[in-house]
Amino acid sequence: MFVRNCWYVAAWSHELEGNRLLARTIINTPLVFYREAQGVVALEDRCPHRAAPLSKGIREAEGIRCRYHGLLFDKGGRCIHAPAQDSVPAGMKVRNFKTVERNTWVWVWMGDPEAADETLIPETPCMGNPEWRSIPGYLHYDVNYLLICDNLLDFSHLPYLHPTTLGGSPDFARILPKVERLPRGVRLKRWVERTQPPSYTRPYFHAEVVDRWVDYDFVAPGVLLMDAGMCATGSGAHTGDRKGALETRSYQALTPETETSTHYFFTQAHNFEIDKPEVTQNLFKAIEIAFEEDRDMIGGQQKNLQLDPNAPMTSLTVDQALIQFRRVISTMIAAEQKA
Amino acid sequence: MFVRNCWYVAAWSHELEGNRLLARTIINTPLVFYREAQGVVALEDRCPHRAAPLSKGIREAEGIRCRYHGLLFDKGGRCIHAPAQDSVPAGMKVRNFKTVERNTWVWVWMGDPEAADETLIPETPCMGNPEWRSIPGYLHYDVNYLLICDNLLDFSHLPYLHPTTLGGSPDFARILPKVERLPRGVRLKRWVERTQPPSYTRPYFHAEVVDRWVDYDFVAPGVLLMDAGMCATGSGAHTGDRKGALETRSYQALTPETETSTHYFFTQAHNFEIDKPEVTQNLFKAIEIAFEEDRDMIGGQQKNLQLDPNAPMTSLTVDQALIQFRRVISTMIAAEQKA
Amino acid sequence: MFVRNCWYVAAWSHELEGNRLLARTIINTPLVFYREAQGVVALEDRCPHRAAPLSKGIREAEGIRCRYHGLLFDKGGRCIHAPAQDSVPAGMKVRNFKTVERNTWVWVWMGDPEAADETLIPETPCMGNPEWRSIPGYLHYDVNYLLICDNLLDFSHLPYLHPTTLGGSPDFARILPKVERLPRGVRLKRWVERTQPPSYTRPYFHAEVVDRWVDYDFVAPGVLLMDAGMCATGSGAHTGDRKGALETRSYQALTPETETSTHYFFTQAHNFEIDKPEVTQNLFKAIEIAFEEDRDMIGGQQKNLQLDPNAPMTSLTVDQALIQFRRVISTMIAAEQKA
Repeated sequence: MFVRNCWYVAAWSHELEGNRLLARTIINTPLVFYREAQGVVALEDRCPHRAAPLSKGIREAEGIRCRYHGLLFDKGGRCIHAPAQDSVPAGMKVRNFKTVERNTWVWVWMGDPEAADETLIPETPCMGNPEWRSIPGYLHYDVNYLLICDNLLDFSHLPYLHPTTLGGSPDFARILPKVERLPRGVRLKRWVERTQPPSYTRPYFHAEVVDRWVDYDFVAPGVLLMDAGMCATGSGAHTGDRKGALETRSYQALTPETETSTHYFFTQAHNFEIDKPEVTQNLFKAIEIAFEEDRDMIGGQQKNLQLDPNAPMTSLTVDQALIQFRRVISTMIAAEQKA
Repeated sequence: MFVRNCWYVAAWSHELEGNRLLARTIINTPLVFYREAQGVVALEDRCPHRAAPLSKGIREAEGIRCRYHGLLFDKGGRCIHAPAQDSVPAGMKVRNFKTVERNTWVWVWMGDPEAADETLIPETPCMGNPEWRSIPGYLHYDVNYLLICDNLLDFSHLPYLHPTTLGGSPDFARILPKVERLPRGVRLKRWVERTQPPSYTRPYFHAEVVDRWVDYDFVAPGVLLMDAGMCATGSGAHTGDRKGALETRSYQALTPETETSTHYFFTQAHNFEIDKPEVTQNLFKAIEIAFEEDRDMIGGQQKNLQLDPNAPMTSLTVDQALIQFRRVISTMIAAEQKA
Repeated sequence: MFVRNCWYVAAWSHELEGNRLLARTIINTPLVFYREAQGVVALEDRCPHRAAPLSKGIREAEGIRCRYHGLLFDKGGRCIHAPAQDSVPAGMKVRNFKTVERNTWVWVWMGDPEAADETLIPETPCMGNPEWRSIPGYLHYDVNYLLICDNLLDFSHLPYLHPTTLGGSPDFARILPKVERLPRGVRLKRWVERTQPPSYTRPYFHAEVVDRWVDYDFVAPGVLLMDAGMCATGSGAHTGDRKGALETRSYQALTPETETSTHYFFTQAHNFEIDKPEVTQNLFKAIEIAFEEDRDMIGGQQKNLQLDPNAPMTSLTVDQALIQFRRVISTMIAAEQKA
């Protein structure tokens, strides 16, 4: 069960170069994406004739021609040519999905097209912004997306699971974030004073002890928008102009493929040493290492849940945000079921 | 659900050399095949004692000895020796299946032995015929066999899916074949005038424009018997003595292994340049390329159908033959269920 | 369905060196094992917080710290520290399982801890005994464990399936063992006079014809305790001091992982030429070859049973022991279900 009336990140802009037809399954629905003059087109990736994937087809001026029996579909999803007959049956069409491309992410609306509201798309101002540097990341996890949401909604795991990259000292896990409910998600603010900096930024911020902040919104269907960083202890550079602080911005989007697999789009931007590509590379590599650690741990959870799907879980205070977020999602699904 | 009372192609003759025990599952039934003086023996590949595969056994003069506990089965499927007891329980036998070997194909009757009627075996006169050349082909597809039947019942896909091999110009797809219902299948005749020849025969027929025919019967459970070729436009060499025409004959058999996997036996014979093995090789390679293209497309259909088994399909005029053939199969299955 | 109130072999002692956390699933229950001063600890390998595997955690002085969110569990399974809160919820604990380490095997009791009775652990006196030599073996089979029990309860398969190793001449299969019912299993005694020795011991016992014995208990949940060997024909060295006989002792334990996979712990000890490591190696290699033959055959059975789970099996006199043992297991399961 998934929320349908929401924007899912479907692709990075660079995945839709030239005439490429990109196949991507989102919430169990096979989609094909391609770029044309007015923007990115998203169609159901299943020819209505015999269920062949249109993503294996031929990009023509007017749309996609199915490579199986030559049916041509326009960008609205209507079949406009069938080789062996003069007129095309009215039902010969595929669903068209609204898309919005913004700051190198392509978003797709999976629900009722009438309800598609672009103002619901979260802001990602530092992606594709010349004052920041970042590398577009993509991973495919064979787990349910909510397990990855759980991961991102409780950063007390950083010092334990990511000691060589994102994690600092264990005291980071002892400080609970302030959690605030948002209309479609939760807001977390964690402020840890006099703590060790994480390993991966040590080359860029020379201090054994820092004040560290990790502030983010996490909104439906599974999008993280983070402002994190550190400053000299007691400097207060967290607020105001952040002079002397080291800052990163992270945008991460979890898009369910099926009940047991997830697309993970992520980036982490920095505004320091932006003329050194190796810095950007090194920060990205650290994230990749950490996300492989996450994948291993979450894969273990998934395996345990498959052995016994009904085993109870016992809550801790650190679960406050993930419990609220799961409630957001289940409430949205229940409302869609009712409607 | 499969038709049982029919002949399935089980193997190529050359797969049963010497004392080989060939394991092959057909319509969910594990079978073991071997050759003896009177012909090819087919037995259920499951020892009635503890379900061990007899195909792992030892070929002896009198039959197969199970390699697990040494039971010996004769070619009728009766256990004629159990090492540790003097008499063998009456129920200790495996099903025996009737086989017929004809023109390098071994056929097996999967239903009621009393109903086995050899006259139902389709004619394949150009297989193993010294005036023709061909190479025996076998592929294993991980899809339901009816999706491959669909493929072979609508050659409008040739110019789109096989442009570098079997396909000619798109006008080939615009001409509908004449479709005639047969007692156990359908007959298709496609005659396309002034069309481009397919790529793969261009070295052997030098013309930019030809008249092309593709005539075939497609009969239960999934056997194609094709006479195809081309001639100079307007020459009328399709009929009569075919002087100056280029001809091929193709025999293809789809044998379901399980609901989601299929054995594909195929050959395509030519009667030109029969003294040049490289011509036979090149024609076979073209078929192999085309069938890999089919496998990729049909695999995509299968995946889409698994994501949503109930998604509707919308018919076109090109579907006439496949609809009739599916009706033949479902009628046969219904009759067997009733009986 | 598995017996719970019994001792399963969980590991070889050497698998628990140093601080290693060993993950092993037994009867569908994920477990983590580690060694500490008082013995081997076995805990459920699923953090009660969010189902993360504790086996991916950190071994600390007091127990295991979950690497996900830092919860620390003592050897009894109680959570004794949660990083972000002062007190831990009472329910935050994992199941602890009783273990006994004896003669290089670690046994675990999977049922009611109150019922754990160490006297039920079978004797394995020649394992880790300086007068004997053996190599610890482990294999993982993707089959239901009862199919392997069947294999070990009917050695009439030796001459057929293992002709180059454990098998001698076919007459070995013709002699039925004496089968006696034990409280939790069966006892088999097979005595074959004037038979060929098995291939693998020929270098160590020079005779073309021998008297051979294979005596063993096979007890729940699936443990074989075997005394086997051979002597000069008519020497009677089977009984008494066994002077001039060649003896082996084998201990084998089948521990179900899931309904379709099994841990197989085995060893075969010899008391001849114990100063020659290559003899021990060669005997072990022969066992490995034989067990791969078993795996192949039993895998074929499993595949046939999956194609048709309800196909009947027909009994032979050789099945007496396996039928009794299966009855032992089903009776134990039924009693547990009732309780």
